[in-house]
Amino acid sequence: MKVGIIGATGYGGLELIRFLHNHQEVEQIDLFTSSEEGVVFSSKFGHLINIADTPLQKIDYDALEQFDVVFTSTPSGVTSELLPPLIGKGPKLIDLSGDFRLKDLASYEQWYGKKAAPAEAIAKSVYGLTEWNAENVRHAPLIANPGCYPTAVLLSLLPLLKNRLIDPSFLVVDAKSGISGAGNKPSQATHYSEANDNFSIYKTNTHQHIPEIEQAISMFAGIDATISFNTHLVPMTRGILSTAYAPVMPGVTEAQLVACLQEKYEKQPFVRIISDANGLATNRVKGSNYCDIFVKVDSRTNRATIVSVIDNLVKGAAGQAIQNMNVQFDLPQTTGLDVVPLFI
Amino acid sequence: MKVGIIGATGYGGLELIRFLHNHQEVEQIDLFTSSEEGVVFSSKFGHLINIADTPLQKIDYDALEQFDVVFTSTPSGVTSELLPPLIGKGPKLIDLSGDFRLKDLASYEQWYGKKAAPAEAIAKSVYGLTEWNAENVRHAPLIANPGCYPTAVLLSLLPLLKNRLIDPSFLVVDAKSGISGAGNKPSQATHYSEANDNFSIYKTNTHQHIPEIEQAISMFAGIDATISFNTHLVPMTRGILSTAYAPVMPGVTEAQLVACLQEKYEKQPFVRIISDANGLATNRVKGSNYCDIFVKVDSRTNRATIVSVIDNLVKGAAGQAIQNMNVQFDLPQTTGLDVVPLFI
Amino acid sequence: MKVGIIGATGYGGLELIRFLHNHQEVEQIDLFTSSEEGVVFSSKFGHLINIADTPLQKIDYDALEQFDVVFTSTPSGVTSELLPPLIGKGPKLIDLSGDFRLKDLASYEQWYGKKAAPAEAIAKSVYGLTEWNAENVRHAPLIANPGCYPTAVLLSLLPLLKNRLIDPSFLVVDAKSGISGAGNKPSQATHYSEANDNFSIYKTNTHQHIPEIEQAISMFAGIDATISFNTHLVPMTRGILSTAYAPVMPGVTEAQLVACLQEKYEKQPFVRIISDANGLATNRVKGSNYCDIFVKVDSRTNRATIVSVIDNLVKGAAGQAIQNMNVQFDLPQTTGLDVVPLFI
Amino acid sequence: MKVGIIGATGYGGLELIRFLHNHQEVEQIDLFTSSEEGVVFSSKFGHLINIADTPLQKIDYDALEQFDVVFTSTPSGVTSELLPPLIGKGPKLIDLSGDFRLKDLASYEQWYGKKAAPAEAIAKSVYGLTEWNAENVRHAPLIANPGCYPTAVLLSLLPLLKNRLIDPSFLVVDAKSGISGAGNKPSQATHYSEANDNFSIYKTNTHQHIPEIEQAISMFAGIDATISFNTHLVPMTRGILSTAYAPVMPGVTEAQLVACLQEKYEKQPFVRIISDANGLATNRVKGSNYCDIFVKVDSRTNRATIVSVIDNLVKGAAGQAIQNMNVQFDLPQTTGLDVVPLFI
Repeated sequence: MKVGIIGATGYGGLELIRFLHNHQEVEQIDLFTSSEEGVVFSSKFGHLINIADTPLQKIDYDALEQFDVVFTSTPSGVTSELLPPLIGKGPKLIDLSGDFRLKDLASYEQWYGKKAAPAEAIAKSVYGLTEWNAENVRHAPLIANPGCYPTAVLLSLLPLLKNRLIDPSFLVVDAKSGISGAGNKPSQATHYSEANDNFSIYKTNTHQHIPEIEQAISMFAGIDATISFNTHLVPMTRGILSTAYAPVMPGVTEAQLVACLQEKYEKQPFVRIISDANGLATNRVKGSNYCDIFVKVDSRTNRATIVSVIDNLVKGAAGQAIQNMNVQFDLPQTTGLDVVPLFI
Repeated sequence: MKVGIIGATGYGGLELIRFLHNHQEVEQIDLFTSSEEGVVFSSKFGHLINIADTPLQKIDYDALEQFDVVFTSTPSGVTSELLPPLIGKGPKLIDLSGDFRLKDLASYEQWYGKKAAPAEAIAKSVYGLTEWNAENVRHAPLIANPGCYPTAVLLSLLPLLKNRLIDPSFLVVDAKSGISGAGNKPSQATHYSEANDNFSIYKTNTHQHIPEIEQAISMFAGIDATISFNTHLVPMTRGILSTAYAPVMPGVTEAQLVACLQEKYEKQPFVRIISDANGLATNRVKGSNYCDIFVKVDSRTNRATIVSVIDNLVKGAAGQAIQNMNVQFDLPQTTGLDVVPLFI
Repeated sequence: MKVGIIGATGYGGLELIRFLHNHQEVEQIDLFTSSEEGVVFSSKFGHLINIADTPLQKIDYDALEQFDVVFTSTPSGVTSELLPPLIGKGPKLIDLSGDFRLKDLASYEQWYGKKAAPAEAIAKSVYGLTEWNAENVRHAPLIANPGCYPTAVLLSLLPLLKNRLIDPSFLVVDAKSGISGAGNKPSQATHYSEANDNFSIYKTNTHQHIPEIEQAISMFAGIDATISFNTHLVPMTRGILSTAYAPVMPGVTEAQLVACLQEKYEKQPFVRIISDANGLATNRVKGSNYCDIFVKVDSRTNRATIVSVIDNLVKGAAGQAIQNMNVQFDLPQTTGLDVVPLFI
Repeated sequence: MKVGIIGATGYGGLELIRFLHNHQEVEQIDLFTSSEEGVVFSSKFGHLINIADTPLQKIDYDALEQFDVVFTSTPSGVTSELLPPLIGKGPKLIDLSGDFRLKDLASYEQWYGKKAAPAEAIAKSVYGLTEWNAENVRHAPLIANPGCYPTAVLLSLLPLLKNRLIDPSFLVVDAKSGISGAGNKPSQATHYSEANDNFSIYKTNTHQHIPEIEQAISMFAGIDATISFNTHLVPMTRGILSTAYAPVMPGVTEAQLVACLQEKYEKQPFVRIISDANGLATNRVKGSNYCDIFVKVDSRTNRATIVSVIDNLVKGAAGQAIQNMNVQFDLPQTTGLDVVPLFI
């Protein structure tokens, strides 16, 4: 397979390279740029010396059409214009940005503050939450790869919502992310001296992943939910932990919640249901494509605490993108992704 | 004033020394130990060379009775036995442990898994949440200094609950703490290589600060609330951030919530109501006795997000303890505590 | 005293505010800016709400002449033009930048790559390494406050060099700094995700503090030394540790090195000679004006290892600047600086 | 291949599992323990759920003899007794501890403070610095896998010393390590709150890797050197950076140093000579088996600065051990080790 990456200099792009380098079906990886044509990639990223010494290439539709897959890992507002001409022209398109996730154009424009992609392009895209949408992913010309927070939140909540085990009318999701989620562009909030040894909340009640989560709950669980959702910045590089709170439905037990999750994910290689909360932490999935989920019912409140962790750059971005590619090419989902989490 | 500290080797004790060193009314600080008699304190803690070169002294009731104040900063289960004989014998007693906080002995024994202090001793103790209980603190022989989480949670929620602006029937508190909250005793969970670059949940629904928070809501707001409460470990040394979620009462606006908080804390030197969430972060209060509070109403859900930050070792422990001492001795609350947060 | 600060938004400036806030002789602190006139300072720095709510003022020579002291904490190349007109006009000037440190203009222009300050202005400036130059500091109109690395290096090496106990012909200084030394301006190298959990060398053999160190060795020890000097970036916010290596002179013992250091600094409140290397670490001086020094002779090589630590923002910048101010106004050197290190 | 690991619960052991899991020639990995027989490995290490769910087995010589390779990753003083009976009995033995590295028993006992392994066992062991000793490694029954610091130091210095380009009579090596080098056992020095945001020196002039480095300089470069060597603790989990200083020999240029390194390592897959110091940092090799080297001559002192970085747990432990296994079984050295560094 011949793979192209647009936006390789971002953290999502770098992770694509890291995993595709060890993907046995990938023979060629070309890197494209809108602004740094000719720059040898490893001269920008020392860790890739001897690994990715190729020059960045100019984005060229004719060239891109020759690829089997094109990944785009760009800021929002780029692929909405860039990708539509390529849809159906040859390569499978897998977009890691948010530009094709929301089916409702007005919602995109409200939450992202940018012009939405053309309606016909959005109509052709498929939301790539692999464990929930593999059949559609298989045949789609364009994958809207899920956001990092939605991946962690949805994988843990969807089975419980779909099976009506928790009450969607009071659903609170309190999410925390490592700082790599903010991307590679320096800013005051991500300046080491101000981010180190510091914990903060950001985008209170206004994160653009809210409509994405609610759309997927509607799509996969058939429920219209309005969630409370907040995001926090953790002084670490990688990892997301989501803590969700919801009343359990009358008569539902903790054992039923656990069983529901286990059953749903029994054959999914990257989702693990954890029985001991001491085993749940972002470092247990670090560098890997795993999503670990833990659920507990508080008998005092009769509410469930539903916790999940992912590596935001892997299952929350590049890893899931490659998982979707594997589905599209009828490869085992674990191809190129079967790595052991780093832990430390 | 002559001050004694029992448990000076813990992080709460070290912070007591740090602030009392610059307290203009304190002339003498003696350090007591149950196990390291004679050890020169600065030989254990290099940062205190030339500052606290005194030897640790054996705990001796006759000696302790000569002090104006005795702070105890020991693990739970110690002062329940140690302090009762000293109550009313001379020194004001300020206990930083959890042993005298819960009025209900059975509750203590259930949540702490230890034998409670004698009922008559607990009856004499006063819960030292300074901004809410200064009058009782002033005359109490024994102060039960609040826990770190309860301080952050209560200061932000109590005004809103007392004034019936938020609905206590669905109150979710998602709290996050720096690792110093776990104390100075090494363990696997606090081993650098396993805690660094890692975020985890712990004591899901079972933290011993839950009954303390509920008791104080009953005591100061007159409401019986059963809260959802979870705690997380943040890879940083100091700081707590609490994110709480509650429906706002019908017709209540965000402006009313803000005004309620501002009014309550207008004359309190250590509580700041923050209008811009970008200014809210644990490093904004680091090393200081401040509690910063931010509130926002999500118009989509009509729920309030109530966020507060403290330094867990200062306002959450040693700083509030000294603030209580100042109240007891009719000193300005800021005496010895008027330091600028470190920020970085 | 009435104090003005130019460059208050930098980390050095913020530390000046932190300490001057608790300086009993300082009644007024005004903040000046070249570009943000009118901005309320605490709206930029949330930790200073209720502490520094004053607006930034335009730099105005007539106004500045009314102050007792003016601190400048600006990037290099600013005060070389800004300060000369103010010299001798009223306020004591204390410059935290490198613009007046090097007596040799050509050397400044070579190492800094900028135009040097006028020769006559440089001639009036005094190098403010307090423990070595207090008499000259006392009467100087303009203090060139030492750099962070030079402070750590010089305090540890000067006594040994001056007394000819170590051999300057092979002097290696390997220095490490927390990231706040790079200032508050975001960059790729200080972007959290790339600086966290990472250690690197920078400016190999070319740091602009090299000529400053060599000039001071000449000035205070009477020796022309050419040192090997390198600097490294440590994933922490504050702190410098310098490890120096030099042959000991024939017949000189470790005890003589220790005695020499102890004697020199016996009456200096901010320098501590540490006897146990386990007590030497940057967190032992964190947030304080201390410099801790440890020396050991390796009998295998007959070379001395000379280690020192400071807080780069305090003894390496704002703290030493205030110490110099205290000297100039005949105050005890510890005024406003007598704080206990944070340790954790 | 059938592989056994003794000491799998240490960080070296966990890294062996991480890499061997993806080693195409390894079919079975069994884990052995002296004290936790029957414990399911993934119940201790949550990141290995679904990956290493096998129970720990009792150490049994008969069983071990059936393996192709046995790795030992235990504290010093264990394999000196454990391994001798197994030498030559079937499995290749690869010891990650220091017990078989020093050929001089007295030296081991002096620096380690423990009884040395039997002389005849040591005589059969081969020092596994792969790039320098592959031929001997190929045929050895027992590999003494190099220490983490020696690997970083030797790979960078040996070519220059062997070719007499730098002067060994004044060789200073200032090394810095992430905290995982201290192992997985909690202690005060590695307690998060005391190690975070802190930098310290340890084992001044007395680290047990000193004789290992000097022995290897003698062995591979034919030079008797006595080095100055110090080690520092960096607040990060993984990574070593070594900064070495040595006079260059008369007439030798920087270009010659660079050429010497390039030539030596031209065909070695895991050593990269870096031309731009900005590309040199521990995160450039994080999680991988690379060693990156940078050299620069300071024209002011005519001394070379020689810098190298490795991941202490990979090239400094488990990675090099597997590299040695690959050599022994005539596999490409990169088998199972061809991973891209994480960078962030």
